[in-house]
Amino acid sequence: MDSQQFREFGKAAIDTVADYMDSIRNRNVLSSVEPGFLLKALPEDAPEQPEDWKDVLKDFNETILSGVTHWHSPRFHAFYPTGSSYASIVGNILCEGLGVMGFSWMSSPVCTELEVVTLNWLGKLLGLPEEFLNCSSGSGGGVIQGSASEATLVGLLAAKEKTVRRLLKVNPSMDEGEIKSRLVAYTSDQCNSSVEKAGLLGSMQMKLLKADADGRLRGETLKKAFDEDRAQGLIPCYVVANLGTTGTCAFDPLYELGPICNEQNVWLHVDAAYAGTAFICPEYRHLMKGVEFADSFDLNPHKWMLVNFDLSAMWVKDAYDLINTFDVQRIYLADIKTDTKIPDYRHWQIPLGRRFRSLKLWTVMRIYGAEGLREHIRVQISLAQHFAKLVRSDDRFLVEPEPSMGLVCFRLKEGDNVTKRLLKNLTEKKEIYMVAATYRGRYIIRFVICSRLTNIDDVNYSWNKIKEEANLICSQNIHVKANTPALNHIESVNIYEKSK
Amino acid sequence: MDSQQFREFGKAAIDTVADYMDSIRNRNVLSSVEPGFLLKALPEDAPEQPEDWKDVLKDFNETILSGVTHWHSPRFHAFYPTGSSYASIVGNILCEGLGVMGFSWMSSPVCTELEVVTLNWLGKLLGLPEEFLNCSSGSGGGVIQGSASEATLVGLLAAKEKTVRRLLKVNPSMDEGEIKSRLVAYTSDQCNSSVEKAGLLGSMQMKLLKADADGRLRGETLKKAFDEDRAQGLIPCYVVANLGTTGTCAFDPLYELGPICNEQNVWLHVDAAYAGTAFICPEYRHLMKGVEFADSFDLNPHKWMLVNFDLSAMWVKDAYDLINTFDVQRIYLADIKTDTKIPDYRHWQIPLGRRFRSLKLWTVMRIYGAEGLREHIRVQISLAQHFAKLVRSDDRFLVEPEPSMGLVCFRLKEGDNVTKRLLKNLTEKKEIYMVAATYRGRYIIRFVICSRLTNIDDVNYSWNKIKEEANLICSQNIHVKANTPALNHIESVNIYEKSK
Repeated sequence: MDSQQFREFGKAAIDTVADYMDSIRNRNVLSSVEPGFLLKALPEDAPEQPEDWKDVLKDFNETILSGVTHWHSPRFHAFYPTGSSYASIVGNILCEGLGVMGFSWMSSPVCTELEVVTLNWLGKLLGLPEEFLNCSSGSGGGVIQGSASEATLVGLLAAKEKTVRRLLKVNPSMDEGEIKSRLVAYTSDQCNSSVEKAGLLGSMQMKLLKADADGRLRGETLKKAFDEDRAQGLIPCYVVANLGTTGTCAFDPLYELGPICNEQNVWLHVDAAYAGTAFICPEYRHLMKGVEFADSFDLNPHKWMLVNFDLSAMWVKDAYDLINTFDVQRIYLADIKTDTKIPDYRHWQIPLGRRFRSLKLWTVMRIYGAEGLREHIRVQISLAQHFAKLVRSDDRFLVEPEPSMGLVCFRLKEGDNVTKRLLKNLTEKKEIYMVAATYRGRYIIRFVICSRLTNIDDVNYSWNKIKEEANLICSQNIHVKANTPALNHIESVNIYEKSK
Repeated sequence: MDSQQFREFGKAAIDTVADYMDSIRNRNVLSSVEPGFLLKALPEDAPEQPEDWKDVLKDFNETILSGVTHWHSPRFHAFYPTGSSYASIVGNILCEGLGVMGFSWMSSPVCTELEVVTLNWLGKLLGLPEEFLNCSSGSGGGVIQGSASEATLVGLLAAKEKTVRRLLKVNPSMDEGEIKSRLVAYTSDQCNSSVEKAGLLGSMQMKLLKADADGRLRGETLKKAFDEDRAQGLIPCYVVANLGTTGTCAFDPLYELGPICNEQNVWLHVDAAYAGTAFICPEYRHLMKGVEFADSFDLNPHKWMLVNFDLSAMWVKDAYDLINTFDVQRIYLADIKTDTKIPDYRHWQIPLGRRFRSLKLWTVMRIYGAEGLREHIRVQISLAQHFAKLVRSDDRFLVEPEPSMGLVCFRLKEGDNVTKRLLKNLTEKKEIYMVAATYRGRYIIRFVICSRLTNIDDVNYSWNKIKEEANLICSQNIHVKANTPALNHIESVNIYEKSK
């Protein structure tokens, strides 16, 4: 394929994407295909000869599109949003056009420096304490990771290395393996499954502490766990606080957890994957009160900030904590400077390779501007509030807990079985998509404003679908209560949540 | 930005990329910027108001492009190639346009199934044993990981879990922590730094065994290490064999390592990150003789198969080894089927989120066809052979070791200092880009055919630059030998290599 054909193919793809988004309301959110549909539809072997791009695009439109779950449909209300915007897509075209690797400054200077610049921009927009920023006088800074999972693991490994070094300094006769086996990490039982996975991967026991009735991990719970563990000879090492839990978007009080961690030399990592973007609006910053106690902070612009996956923004107070953990060549490449101001980012992350991901963050921030981004957040939250009002206007429903950010959880008062049946039927009709969770032992349905295209008419549309289904369900209660069929294909937010 | 503006911005970006590639020979490979150039050039804060896309594109062309190291310049001969093609870029536009997550079948059926189909296609093209393929009768299959680093870590964690389970089954009274602390992984001292990092991350001692004079890890070396370690109560668990080492592209003999691993219940992972793509040409398959002994196999289409980063293709003989390692909810989500034929890929990998990466593999395989991909490999290897011939025609140079795939290593007979000076001067002139390595204790320069655009004229151009510089250097030897200045900004392939 020469550059002329690329101009044609590429522009046709741009139109395909624009047409797809323009007509997305004409499609059901969920597809109707059966497992194995594509394995049957496509040839068993790769084509031997080159094919025409027009045939490829035709197959995309006719075959691929038939099996898509439309995450950017305005009626997709499941999980949390995955980011997407035209600005981000174009930013990534430019990234792929250059196709550079950015593992060191020299491997592509602008790839490193634009990451520094955009993470300074974003850190300031969020109101993060200055010491997290590369533009401060200290050794803090931001780095783009692939996901919040990765950031949690990076924090854990850095905390482990730092704790071991600190203890060995005090008592050089201690055994490193022995210290490592006694380290403990903590988070709440409302955490995302990725946090638990980080403990598994990083070989550190991860304790899931009981959240309070509002889903928040409290200071006294953490303090008690530290005390009990220390009494048994264990060493508290790492705490993951959640700003916006997966199930109900609850916020752990950093102002309670932070001082305890700081006093006891325990690394505090803040996972604000979804909700963190809201801090660009000053009216939500009270929810991160105490962030100055944290050692690391992570949010996913690829969730709620209109940036396409993957781009997770992580800031640390002291980048040398990462460099000391990940620089496997620190002894042998003394000539390569590992200054934190112009970083060699390969020492701030797990893999070696890295794309020029900051380009899409840059295009999004410029095309939207800070005002545009704030408006996006405020509109989405107001739509959630509108939905909550609709639900509350219907006596058969309960909104519980209080809506938080773009999430509204609700259930039918008649009971869990009816609520389950409601979700099952709606999912089978494929017009709107929500997933379940549990709250205080009750089965709840989570309704999230996900697509950037969602407007008030879409919310009304989704509510009407829910209400109509409730009308059918509530007149059939006698059957429903008797025996609810197995819910084989209903996803639950549990795939995000911890196992207990 | 509405869809009409996206059509304009997106198409302008397509033209920008095409223009960039069309004129790439007009630029130096290395940029002339100084550290901090972009921090000075860009504003300290994000724009408050939305900006026009034309201004963004203007800044891309005027500011961003000035700081790029041009990895796709036909005169870029450093490291190994990072993949790029028009077909891949367009595939990714479609991926981003849909913007779906594929953590389970239902989260986007086609995202899962196209991954199965394309990895069957690719596995067959490579001539992998059938048991690695999803389309076989067993429980083998392919999965897209982010990088070879990630695949190495996934293999290690699966090997650890499998070994612990096996030993506990035989002797349930053993302590799990105790077993884990005695597990050992092995690779050669020619391995990529990411292999060593996998040991650090996965908390398993990684022994770097001495390669033979040709850079290959031999069976007898491995056997001896196993025996010595078992005698000390350690448990051999995981071996990473390299097909195409980073420094000199040497191939470990799988037919020697494999039977030893199989006999001793040790997981054999094959890292064929760069060179593995060559196996689509039958004439190179003898280099993977013994692959049937492997438990897992990984190659990076994002290196040599024209696919943009990131897309690492990993196959395992038994996918349940991954599922048993990564499915943190296996007990609680019994209703979600974890069959290996229609996989829930989140259980085959470290993160939860996953993009629709198979789309770009699909577009590349269709637009090139198997024949087009083979031709790409054969042309690149023949260009490397042409370069080797040019170097050998000049008495001042030595080619050493034998060229392998697209890599030719060479040095000046006069000695390491002169060779170093040659590379330093060429790097300062920025017209061509190569990096150094060591071979049998000597400083060598690695010349790799990287860009898909490189043709015979480009190779002649690069060779002429090298020869001209040698002409200057070799008449200045007396100065050179006296005192070579510090080589502050010469990258070495060491950033890929192990630390010892």
